[in-house]
Amino acid sequence: MPIHMPDLPEWTAGVHHDGSVMYVTNPLPELNETVTIKLRTPLAAPIRHVFIRAMVDGEYHWVPMRIQEETKTSQIWAGPLTVAQPRLDYRFKIMLDEGSYYYTALGMSHADTPDADDFTLLADYKAPLWVRDAIFYQIFPDRFYNGDPSNDTQNGEFEHAGVKSMKRQWGELPIPWAKGRSMDFFGGDLQGITQKLDYLRDLGVTSLYLCPIFLAGTNHKYDINDFWQIDPHFGGNEALAELRRALDERGMHIILDITTNHIGHQNTWYLDARDNPDADTAEFFDFNPTTGEIDTWLGVPILLKLNYTSQKLRDRMYRDDDAALRYWLKEPYCIDGWRLDVANMTGNLRTHQLDHDVWREMRPHIKQVKPDAYLLGEYFMDGTPHLGGDELDASMNYAGFNISVRRWLGGADVGTQDKHPHGDMSLLPSDAVAYQWQRFMGAVPYVIALQQFNQLGSHDTTRILHVAGEDKALVKAGTALLMGFPGVPCIYYGDEVGMTGGKDPDNRRTMPWDETDWDQDMRAFHQRLIEIRHNSPALKTGGFQLLLAEGDMLAYQRHLPDQTLIVAAYRGLDNAPDYHVPVWQGGIVDGAQLKDLLSGDVYTVEGGQIVLGGLAHGQALVLELQ
Amino acid sequence: MPIHMPDLPEWTAGVHHDGSVMYVTNPLPELNETVTIKLRTPLAAPIRHVFIRAMVDGEYHWVPMRIQEETKTSQIWAGPLTVAQPRLDYRFKIMLDEGSYYYTALGMSHADTPDADDFTLLADYKAPLWVRDAIFYQIFPDRFYNGDPSNDTQNGEFEHAGVKSMKRQWGELPIPWAKGRSMDFFGGDLQGITQKLDYLRDLGVTSLYLCPIFLAGTNHKYDINDFWQIDPHFGGNEALAELRRALDERGMHIILDITTNHIGHQNTWYLDARDNPDADTAEFFDFNPTTGEIDTWLGVPILLKLNYTSQKLRDRMYRDDDAALRYWLKEPYCIDGWRLDVANMTGNLRTHQLDHDVWREMRPHIKQVKPDAYLLGEYFMDGTPHLGGDELDASMNYAGFNISVRRWLGGADVGTQDKHPHGDMSLLPSDAVAYQWQRFMGAVPYVIALQQFNQLGSHDTTRILHVAGEDKALVKAGTALLMGFPGVPCIYYGDEVGMTGGKDPDNRRTMPWDETDWDQDMRAFHQRLIEIRHNSPALKTGGFQLLLAEGDMLAYQRHLPDQTLIVAAYRGLDNAPDYHVPVWQGGIVDGAQLKDLLSGDVYTVEGGQIVLGGLAHGQALVLELQ
Repeated sequence: MPIHMPDLPEWTAGVHHDGSVMYVTNPLPELNETVTIKLRTPLAAPIRHVFIRAMVDGEYHWVPMRIQEETKTSQIWAGPLTVAQPRLDYRFKIMLDEGSYYYTALGMSHADTPDADDFTLLADYKAPLWVRDAIFYQIFPDRFYNGDPSNDTQNGEFEHAGVKSMKRQWGELPIPWAKGRSMDFFGGDLQGITQKLDYLRDLGVTSLYLCPIFLAGTNHKYDINDFWQIDPHFGGNEALAELRRALDERGMHIILDITTNHIGHQNTWYLDARDNPDADTAEFFDFNPTTGEIDTWLGVPILLKLNYTSQKLRDRMYRDDDAALRYWLKEPYCIDGWRLDVANMTGNLRTHQLDHDVWREMRPHIKQVKPDAYLLGEYFMDGTPHLGGDELDASMNYAGFNISVRRWLGGADVGTQDKHPHGDMSLLPSDAVAYQWQRFMGAVPYVIALQQFNQLGSHDTTRILHVAGEDKALVKAGTALLMGFPGVPCIYYGDEVGMTGGKDPDNRRTMPWDETDWDQDMRAFHQRLIEIRHNSPALKTGGFQLLLAEGDMLAYQRHLPDQTLIVAAYRGLDNAPDYHVPVWQGGIVDGAQLKDLLSGDVYTVEGGQIVLGGLAHGQALVLELQ
Repeated sequence: MPIHMPDLPEWTAGVHHDGSVMYVTNPLPELNETVTIKLRTPLAAPIRHVFIRAMVDGEYHWVPMRIQEETKTSQIWAGPLTVAQPRLDYRFKIMLDEGSYYYTALGMSHADTPDADDFTLLADYKAPLWVRDAIFYQIFPDRFYNGDPSNDTQNGEFEHAGVKSMKRQWGELPIPWAKGRSMDFFGGDLQGITQKLDYLRDLGVTSLYLCPIFLAGTNHKYDINDFWQIDPHFGGNEALAELRRALDERGMHIILDITTNHIGHQNTWYLDARDNPDADTAEFFDFNPTTGEIDTWLGVPILLKLNYTSQKLRDRMYRDDDAALRYWLKEPYCIDGWRLDVANMTGNLRTHQLDHDVWREMRPHIKQVKPDAYLLGEYFMDGTPHLGGDELDASMNYAGFNISVRRWLGGADVGTQDKHPHGDMSLLPSDAVAYQWQRFMGAVPYVIALQQFNQLGSHDTTRILHVAGEDKALVKAGTALLMGFPGVPCIYYGDEVGMTGGKDPDNRRTMPWDETDWDQDMRAFHQRLIEIRHNSPALKTGGFQLLLAEGDMLAYQRHLPDQTLIVAAYRGLDNAPDYHVPVWQGGIVDGAQLKDLLSGDVYTVEGGQIVLGGLAHGQALVLELQ
């Protein structure tokens, strides 16, 4: 038989809790703090009692809830919970005359389910709160802006895999990898970024995520040859210090990209070990038991896998006072966090699966230097096991957001860009997107969900406009979903002016600076959505409730006590059929008015719903409860 | 909106994989062994490709599958997987022309979901294989049989909570706790168990689980005062050695019950610490920061919580050569494993949540003495986080089996026996039972599921006959579900002869030995089901697939290459409506015959199903494919 949650009566769709301040008086409690937990249920629900079931010291702890408030549509149940352990899991048990339901982060169920479905509170978790207010912008430095032509990589300056470095003209297309081997350089640098900060501020961006800038031998610089040197072609260490100053003037943040999993083949750690088995750094590597060779990242010979059974490696990476991951957090660079490249593989090789160990140990060494440093791990796959509060602060949320939306808009699955037969090119059904969102969001504490790193595309994927088949309306629909979603949105450089590009390196074209090359409408749309985000506390820290996922429509609600927004996106053809959005499920009353902040249209709630009729292809709405 | 897996086309219900030998050539592979993974899909499925997606060193590893075999109903896809890390998670991606599905331990989904849904292979996991062949029998020693009246606890021999020990007559009812304070003794002992082993062998029992027998001050003896002494009222250490010899003569096994979470108030560890803060054992305890008192188990003053931040405590519990958990594994006692009482709380108190640490460290110290010792933890709640192969071998599967069946048969939820308002007394819908089974089974490697400890009742719950409202037909239905379910079945003493009893201590009545007091029909039913279990490899190690969960019917399939069985149970009234069991989903062809091993009735498959019509109230079926 198909495995499924049993069918549920309609009123159950109106039951809601999440870990936002709407339902937890303090979502970031200190140890031993008592918070009030709330649950919203529809007035029509035949509920007799509600209990919180918390797991305290491994045992069930039952807290009866009381009706604290009654609105025109809902009852608000409340009960106290003391957070006396670092991580506290809880769910609700809703008692009816005819039975009971458990309500968890995955919804309602007659059946009991594993604790993994529980909601989670973290005690004494120090969230990097600045992230909630951020709009990130991802830059591939060689391609953003050439601020200092004197440091450009020259033709034949160095060589890799038989290909010599090539200096290219701004605006030319990147050379495909099979021919170019990542040896084509366009001259972008940190000075260029510094010079363009006002462009970014004008767009609404507050924070930068830079792809690697350390000394390396390719244009992508993931083959890091020295963790303590900014590549001179990007301006060297001083250019980063200067960028820092310029960011500070504008109140902006920056995170850098570092590969903790492997290093480049010109790194002295490797050169020493390759030539001398007795070298201090020999233990930094693994030797393949079959070939006897030093292990590489997925067989790429210039990327040497690091071995975290080495205590000395751990010292150099994060324990020493000047360890790589600590050094750049300090003056004069003061970066605001790390994007940890290939976080998914770091520490993992055959019998050694040390990722949890490494992150747990690394975290305090980072936070000691900068308590609000943002620790962001790259995970194309499931990163949630590392997001329990004691390892990373967030993952690149490919699995929980990015991939689902790219599949929904354009059938861009993992693998489709490489034409792998396991890549599914069909459009993902809307209800599957909603299920995927809820599963990954439900797997982390909500305070973590609020700092997950969401994108529509990156240097590792085709661009979103390419995914959308060059259909800008669909990109806009996706952008609205991005800006409204729990977590911090990040724009991949140039998406805002309509850049396109297929598989790497086509997705790494140079940023156009001739404004006539810009799609001004797309840029204005980005500006407007970013402005809405900045002005909407509900989008930054509010709760999240799915409202509709059917046909070609996705709609979800974000809410705080003083603000309720519904974000909706439609991927279908012009003149959409009527979509009935059941806003009663979100506690919204008949007669209420919802105003679309994008079109100005006003919708009135009748019979518990609003009717979105005749939408245009790719239309997005951001409906604010008046 | 309700959160649910999207609706699925009918053919998807015929897709199946589990971790049994039916689908994994070696479910217990050594490290670096390559196994073949198989997936069954219905012929009618419009499948283009199937891939295994394994998580290797944190990265996706895609293995294309090939059609290895085609039956009249199904295609068997196969692909190789090398298990080069201790734990390997995998799922399937099934590619159609119109899209794709992930298939996981939770079933089919268009959406991707967290890795927790994956199937899991363990490398180098040493399963206590004897458990698979076992039929367990749980004995509350004071109440089973008085083999040596000379060691009986006497009136006034000791005292607890103002109540003096009382010697009671066999057959009298236990005195309710409020009055008796667990101080009524009936004289049962180890000699009695030894004398009744042939009774148990005749029933088909192979393994004993004894409630605590260590020196203690109550009849339940969970207040252990000396881990190295068998209570003299049970015959002392020599009686255990003698029981061991008698078990060996019959090829039987035994596990003992030990509380790792707390000790009794007459334990010298406590007495020393209570009287002297400088005592060696003072660090074995926690002191409540509010009251300054030594912490107790849920506030029960005679049960003192143990503190596993103490290294010395760890030494005495499991590291020392004669540590409590090692001592009894050795000659002359040679017990076969431990039932770890209150495993859920062990090591957990406020800021110290050490359960994972303690089990991980304890395991090798146990296995070093006896590699096939069975480590069974008590978990009324979710024990699955401890069942990854490096902590415990199994949990008392209350959440994954026991509670769901007790709720299905008689509305006996956690808490109902104590009339807690969070106890749901309504009958659990059949599809909720199926969902709960699948969720908990899917959360552990299948080799672990095959050794989970399943019961219908225990010394901690009302008896199953009581739950069933004294309706023996329902008990039989439950017993069939128990004997057929993945994991090892355990009978609570006396259930087989129709004993009843409500809440503790009424569930601990004395075992009747006058055969005229026995329900011979119930006993014969148990004997027959046990015989079927012993003769059915499919029930011991076969795969598991749910077939039907609707109305008052539950049916599941167990399968091996050479044996297919379907276990069905009906809880409704006589003259059941027709239930159509879709055996095509299990790969069974039209025209095949299924013979009920209980009634002898034969059913022929037509249109992909068998029709079970006119079943009697509480009827159970064990249908074997001919």
